[in-house]
Amino acid sequence: MSERYTIGLDYGTNSVRALVVNTANGQEVATAVWKYQHGTDGVMLSHDPNLARQHPADYVRGAAITLKQVVQIARKKVRGFKPEQVIGLGVDTTGSTPLPVDAQGRPLAFDPRFANHPAAMAWLWKDHTSIAEAAEITELARRRRPKYLAKCGGVYSSEWFFSKILHCRRTAPKVFAAAHSWVECADWVPAMLTGSEAPDRLQIGICAAGHKAMFNAAWGGYPDAGFLAQLDPQLGLLRSRLPKRAGTIAQAAGRLTAAWAQRTGLPAGLPVAVGALDAHLGAVGSGIAPGALVKIIGTSTCDMMVVPGGKPLADVPGLCGIVSGSILPGYHGLEAGQSAVGDIFNWFVNYLQPGGRQSGGHEALTAAAARLRPGESGLLALDWNNGNRTVLVDQRLTGLLLGQTLYTTPAEIYRALIEATAFGALTIINRLEAYGVKVRHIINCGGIAEKNPVVMQIYADVTGRPMRVSRSAQTCALGAAIAGAVVAGAYPNCEAAQRAMTGLKPGGFKPGRTAHAIYRELYTHYKKLHDVFGTKNWKGNLYDVMKGLLAIRGRVRK
Amino acid sequence: MSERYTIGLDYGTNSVRALVVNTANGQEVATAVWKYQHGTDGVMLSHDPNLARQHPADYVRGAAITLKQVVQIARKKVRGFKPEQVIGLGVDTTGSTPLPVDAQGRPLAFDPRFANHPAAMAWLWKDHTSIAEAAEITELARRRRPKYLAKCGGVYSSEWFFSKILHCRRTAPKVFAAAHSWVECADWVPAMLTGSEAPDRLQIGICAAGHKAMFNAAWGGYPDAGFLAQLDPQLGLLRSRLPKRAGTIAQAAGRLTAAWAQRTGLPAGLPVAVGALDAHLGAVGSGIAPGALVKIIGTSTCDMMVVPGGKPLADVPGLCGIVSGSILPGYHGLEAGQSAVGDIFNWFVNYLQPGGRQSGGHEALTAAAARLRPGESGLLALDWNNGNRTVLVDQRLTGLLLGQTLYTTPAEIYRALIEATAFGALTIINRLEAYGVKVRHIINCGGIAEKNPVVMQIYADVTGRPMRVSRSAQTCALGAAIAGAVVAGAYPNCEAAQRAMTGLKPGGFKPGRTAHAIYRELYTHYKKLHDVFGTKNWKGNLYDVMKGLLAIRGRVRK
Repeated sequence: MSERYTIGLDYGTNSVRALVVNTANGQEVATAVWKYQHGTDGVMLSHDPNLARQHPADYVRGAAITLKQVVQIARKKVRGFKPEQVIGLGVDTTGSTPLPVDAQGRPLAFDPRFANHPAAMAWLWKDHTSIAEAAEITELARRRRPKYLAKCGGVYSSEWFFSKILHCRRTAPKVFAAAHSWVECADWVPAMLTGSEAPDRLQIGICAAGHKAMFNAAWGGYPDAGFLAQLDPQLGLLRSRLPKRAGTIAQAAGRLTAAWAQRTGLPAGLPVAVGALDAHLGAVGSGIAPGALVKIIGTSTCDMMVVPGGKPLADVPGLCGIVSGSILPGYHGLEAGQSAVGDIFNWFVNYLQPGGRQSGGHEALTAAAARLRPGESGLLALDWNNGNRTVLVDQRLTGLLLGQTLYTTPAEIYRALIEATAFGALTIINRLEAYGVKVRHIINCGGIAEKNPVVMQIYADVTGRPMRVSRSAQTCALGAAIAGAVVAGAYPNCEAAQRAMTGLKPGGFKPGRTAHAIYRELYTHYKKLHDVFGTKNWKGNLYDVMKGLLAIRGRVRK
Repeated sequence: MSERYTIGLDYGTNSVRALVVNTANGQEVATAVWKYQHGTDGVMLSHDPNLARQHPADYVRGAAITLKQVVQIARKKVRGFKPEQVIGLGVDTTGSTPLPVDAQGRPLAFDPRFANHPAAMAWLWKDHTSIAEAAEITELARRRRPKYLAKCGGVYSSEWFFSKILHCRRTAPKVFAAAHSWVECADWVPAMLTGSEAPDRLQIGICAAGHKAMFNAAWGGYPDAGFLAQLDPQLGLLRSRLPKRAGTIAQAAGRLTAAWAQRTGLPAGLPVAVGALDAHLGAVGSGIAPGALVKIIGTSTCDMMVVPGGKPLADVPGLCGIVSGSILPGYHGLEAGQSAVGDIFNWFVNYLQPGGRQSGGHEALTAAAARLRPGESGLLALDWNNGNRTVLVDQRLTGLLLGQTLYTTPAEIYRALIEATAFGALTIINRLEAYGVKVRHIINCGGIAEKNPVVMQIYADVTGRPMRVSRSAQTCALGAAIAGAVVAGAYPNCEAAQRAMTGLKPGGFKPGRTAHAIYRELYTHYKKLHDVFGTKNWKGNLYDVMKGLLAIRGRVRK
C-alpha cells in the first residue's frame, strides 16, 4: 500500500509553516515556511508599545504559498509522491488572536473602509492594549461569576478574547459596530480553508474558546449575556452573534474547497481538523499523555498536561487554564507557563550586552556558565522580568537579582537567570502535584530545549527529574498534522496517532545527585523570595537569605 | 612679612603625596607624588586573596623622595620660596595598618631574618586575613567587655589592629615573638621623621588607637591585659610594650631630625604633628565642624562628623567608631561609612562591561543615566556588593537589584546603583539624627565628589539636602598640613586654622523638589529591603515593593 500523508499548518508570530508528515510513523518529509509581509516581521506596531496586530491577508496568502510549496517540495523529496496521498490537514495558530469579521465571516481588514485601521486587524496574542478592560472583566467576574475565573487561574488576561473586544468597543466604536462577530485566528483559518467562515455555521475549537474566552459547556458556552452586558450592553448583544459550536481537534471543521484545492494542488474535499492553539497541538506533537508534562520552551514557556476526563478535576489555583478536551479529546487540558524564559536570556545579551557583543553572546555565556558549579556564584534571581504567569498570575511583578559582589561576572549572572527559570518551572510542577496532578516525566520541546543542553541539564538538576526532548523540532506543526490524520480516519483517536507518530530524542538529561542537593537548598531561598514579593499573605524575615547563599558558596568553593 | 608654609604628608594605598600649603589661606603651592615600589601598585599580595601588605621601606623612601621633591617644586613655583618658610608638618596614613617593630622601633621587615616574611610587613588596612580572629575578639568582648564594642559599632573588624596581631601570633609565631611591639603606620611615620620610634617614648595618636584598637581613656588606654590574655596569653603580655601616650593632631610627635633635614632640605627641628588616619585629616581639610557631615567618596565612603566634647555622647548603634579627639581636639569624632560606592560602579563597568568597553564606560553611562528621571526605570538596588559598614556592620551581605524588565538598559542599572549608594548615605544620616547628631550641611570630597556632578545631584535629590564640595582636591594632605600649622603655632587651635585654610567650591547641588518627593517614596521601599534582608527582627511582606515601583514608574513616564 502506498504511503499516506497529513499536513500540519502552523501559524506563528512571524511566519507560517506547512509540514508534510507520514501518517504511519510521523516522519516529516517536507516543510515550507513563509514570512508574513505586513508590519515588522509580520507584526503591525504603533507608537503604543502595547499594540501588536496582524493583517489577516497574511493568513490567506501564507496558507496559499506554503501549502503549494510544501506539495512541490514533497514531490521532489519523496519518490512518487502524489498530492492525493495527503489525506488530512490540521491547523494551529497563536492565540488569543481574535479578528473582527462581517456576517459572511470576512475579516473587516478586507473592507476598504477599514483597510488601514489597526482595530480591524487580528489582535495578536501579545497585544497588551486591553489591560484596563482585563482588570474590569476580572473584577466583575470576581464579584458576580467567580466560577468563570476558577478555570483560568483567577485572573482574566489582557491578552484574551473579551478584553480585546471590549477595548475595541471603547476605543474604536466604528470598527466594533461594523463587526458582525469576532473569531479566533485558530478557528478562522480552518473555516477559510473549508469555506465555512460565516459565523452562524463556523465550527470553533474548544481550545481557544475554553482557554481564552471562558467558554465552558457547564454554563452553556460563552459567559452569559447578562454578564457581558454589564461590561457593555453591546458586548451582551454580541454574544448571540458569536459561533456556538465548539469541537475538539478530532472533529473536522470542514473539507478543503475546490478553490483552495486549485490554489494549492491539494485534493478538494480534504478533511480539515478543528483548529487549536500552537502550544496545545505542540503538546500533542510531543506525545503528551497522562503523567507527562510537556514544556514548550522558547521566549516564554507553555507547560501542558492532560488528566483523564472521566471525573471532574479540582481547580488548580494559578493555572492559566483548565479546559476539558482542549488538548486531547476526553481529557482535561491543563495549561501553565512562565511569562519569560528565553526572553530573559535575550534581555541580558541584547540589552546589557555584557562584555560587548563578541564575548557576551549566548554561546560564550552558556559555555562559561556551564563551567560553574551550582551555588558557586552566591547569586539568586527571580524570573519575573515579564511578570509571572503561573502560579502567581501577576503581570505587575519584575525581575530580581541578589547576591552580587564586587567580583560577580556576566557568566555567573547568566547562569543565575537560567536557574531562576528552572526554579520557576519547579514551582509550577510543585503546584500541579500539590493538587493531585502527578508529574511522572517531562518532555521538552521548542528552541531552547533543542539547542541548549546546559539549560536542560540545569532543569534536570533543579527539578530532580530527568529531562527528555521531543524527537520533532516542529511539534506544533506535527500536532496539527496528527489532528489531520485523525479526522482523515487514519487512526481511531489521537492517542493512537500519537503512539505511531511522535517520539523522543535518545538520551536526555539526568539529575546529578550533588547538584540537586544544592539546588534544593537554593530553592528554599527562591521560594521565600517568591512568596515575600509575590503573595500578600507571607510574612517573615529574609535575614538568612544572603548569608545562606554565602554559606553555600563557601561550601561549594572549598 | 614673608609667607609661611606647612606640609601635609599623605600616605595612601598605592602612593604617598607631599603637599606644601600656605598657612595664611590654605593655598596649595606644590605637590609631589611617589608610587610605592613593592608589590603590585605598592600592595604585596599572595595566593590568599585576603592578604594585603606593604613594605615599610616604601614609607621611608616615600617620605625622603616626596619631601625633597616638593621643596624643589615649591622653589620653582613660588618666587623667593625658602625651605625655612616651612614651619610645620603633619602626617596622615591609611589604617588600621599596623607593623611589628623591635625594641628600637625598627620595623621587623628591615631585619634580614624577616626580609621576605609577609607577617613582618605592614598589614595594610584592607588585609582580611584575620576574619576568624575578629569574630573571636567580638565574641569575647560581647560576653565580657560590651563597653569595648559600644564605641565601634558593636563589631570588631578583621581590618583592625588586634585582629591582625592575633592572626600573626596564630599563623607566624616567630614573627610575633620577634616583635617587641606593634605600631600603626599613622604613628610610625611621625616617629620615624622625629627619631622617636622607640615604643617606650613613641607618641601615638588617639585617632588610630581609638578607632581601630579600642583605646579609650575611660578604661585606661588599650583593652585591659586580662581581656587580651584571654584571647592569647602573649597578647596580654604585649600590652605593656605598646606605646602608652595617645595625643591629638594639635600635639607635636616631635621635631624633624637633622638626618631627615639633610635628606629633604627641610629645616631641622621642624615640628611634626601627631599622625592620624587619612579620612579623619581629610575631614579636617574639608572644614569639618559641628553640624557638618564630611563625606569622603571614593571606592568606598567615610562619613565623618564632630560633636562638641563638653558632654558625653550617647553611643550611636552601627557607627564604626566614636572617639573623643580623633578628628578635632575637644570634640567627639564620629566615623561611619559605606563599604563600597565607586567600587560598585567600577564592578558594573569593569566586570559586566555592559555594551562592551566602548559604550559602557563610566562617562557614557553617567551621561545616559543623567537623562533619566527619578523613578523612571522602576529599578531599586541595595548597595551591599561589599557588605554594609554602617549601620548594619555586616560583611556577610550582598548586592540586590530589583525591578528589571525585558527592556531594562545598562544606564538604568547604573543610575539605580548610584541611587542605591545615595539611599545608603541617607540611612547613615537618619541614624545620626535619630541619636541627636543633627546633619545641618554636607561637604563632599574625594574622587567621585570632584568628578561626577550627576552623582552629587542624585545625592542632593535623595537626601533632600544641598551638596557642597570641598575646595581642595587633596583634603587629606591639606588636613595633615593644617595639623602641621597648628603644632607650629601658626594658629591657636585647629578650628582657627580650618577657618583660614579650608573652603568650599562655589555653587553646589540643590535638591529638586519633584525629584526629592519621588526619592522619598523610593526610599520607603529601599528601607524595607534594607531591614528585611539586613536585620533579624523585621517581619513583614514585600508584596507592594515591585508594584509600588511600577506605579511610580507609570506616574513618572506619563
